[in-house]
Amino acid sequence: MKLKVYADRMSQPSRAVLIFCKVNGIDFQEVKVDISKRQQLSPEYKEINPMGQVPTIVDGRFKLFESHAILIYLACVFPGVPDHWYPADLFRRARINSVLDWHHSNLRRGCFTYVINMVLGPALGLRLDPQAAAEAEKLLSSSLSKIESVWLKGNGKFLLGGLQPSIADLSLVCEIMQLEVLDDKDRVRILAPHKKVQQWIENTKIATSPYFDEVHNVLFKAKARYQEQRLKSWSSSGTSLKSKM
Amino acid sequence: MKLKVYADRMSQPSRAVLIFCKVNGIDFQEVKVDISKRQQLSPEYKEINPMGQVPTIVDGRFKLFESHAILIYLACVFPGVPDHWYPADLFRRARINSVLDWHHSNLRRGCFTYVINMVLGPALGLRLDPQAAAEAEKLLSSSLSKIESVWLKGNGKFLLGGLQPSIADLSLVCEIMQLEVLDDKDRVRILAPHKKVQQWIENTKIATSPYFDEVHNVLFKAKARYQEQRLKSWSSSGTSLKSKM
Repeated sequence: MKLKVYADRMSQPSRAVLIFCKVNGIDFQEVKVDISKRQQLSPEYKEINPMGQVPTIVDGRFKLFESHAILIYLACVFPGVPDHWYPADLFRRARINSVLDWHHSNLRRGCFTYVINMVLGPALGLRLDPQAAAEAEKLLSSSLSKIESVWLKGNGKFLLGGLQPSIADLSLVCEIMQLEVLDDKDRVRILAPHKKVQQWIENTKIATSPYFDEVHNVLFKAKARYQEQRLKSWSSSGTSLKSKM
Repeated sequence: MKLKVYADRMSQPSRAVLIFCKVNGIDFQEVKVDISKRQQLSPEYKEINPMGQVPTIVDGRFKLFESHAILIYLACVFPGVPDHWYPADLFRRARINSVLDWHHSNLRRGCFTYVINMVLGPALGLRLDPQAAAEAEKLLSSSLSKIESVWLKGNGKFLLGGLQPSIADLSLVCEIMQLEVLDDKDRVRILAPHKKVQQWIENTKIATSPYFDEVHNVLFKAKARYQEQRLKSWSSSGTSLKSKM
């Protein structure tokens, strides 16, 4: 039975798992779980993942959720996945685990909370909260600084000085890509100070081409939609300003 | 060269690593990093862990931080650690990874944020924030419910139906133990609805005895200190109330 990946490409951990499968030639079936329609909370889906989150994989009778656990499982179980994704060497593996653990309470928390409170909240039934966004931006920016000064220290193209990407590169870069839905001025303000991070994102895109862009396409379309909405809202506020003058 | 564990026993991930080492007879040297004195932010410590957090291990020339990564490393590298802590079986291992990943954004975030905003904040130079505590309590309580209905489903003594503990049991139980510093009425209100969780905490204590209590002793002492402060503050507010009557 083919591996099933339950995912929504608007979710960054979903994208990481999908790109990993495609890059490594893993034969799988993608099953769309539409978060904007709350499908992850349906009783049918909760039979697969009682936490009501994406992604989840079903491999035969084995169900697994949490994207890092999934990436590690796929790297270890599927034959032919190159060693650099999750090295057998225990020291290199331990350092990748360290990045992945750090990610949860730092980059992920900052980035996710910022984007939800700046743009994506209403699509998920949440209100935008500028104060929460401001707090999250601090954590996001300090996390990007840490990535640059700690994980990207040295001359490697990837985290931990790697010449090829690991699952940590994929997970963290997919998280940062979520910033695409922001207004450009916000995204540029946040990323501009971090030149090494920008180069690393580019390196990860290239190393996972063409699947990186293919899987992110839905995000690029969302970016265009949000940008259009912003232009309309500015233009209508301009009109109302004029009409008051 | 002996393994060094840089830790503060008031930190729950530090305690998990220390208990793991002791239970498994790993020969190590504990190096106290006093968080209340900001020692984790000193330039010397940042040479070891640039993120300025505890715990960190130094094993020969190898430095590692993030407690889950450390526990996995120790379980894989040190001979004689029983398999149940982090099974070689890829399916069981994957499910333990899933619990550990879930922990970060759920139980840990809820519990840590609650305790910091209810009690421990001032010791770390932060102010108490009742609104943040109230928000955190929701996440904490829903996480305890999920542990009970998902991870403790069935009749196992430990998470995932285990008959013996894994590193996930140790990590999550050490987190919940942080609630000891709360006023008893708050701790009881939070834990009372979760009978299976209470039994599982007890099972984990017994399975790691006598080291569990030994390593938690500093927390029990802190609990007594905070309780004394509360009594004093109530008694003086009672006096001032009386004097106003």
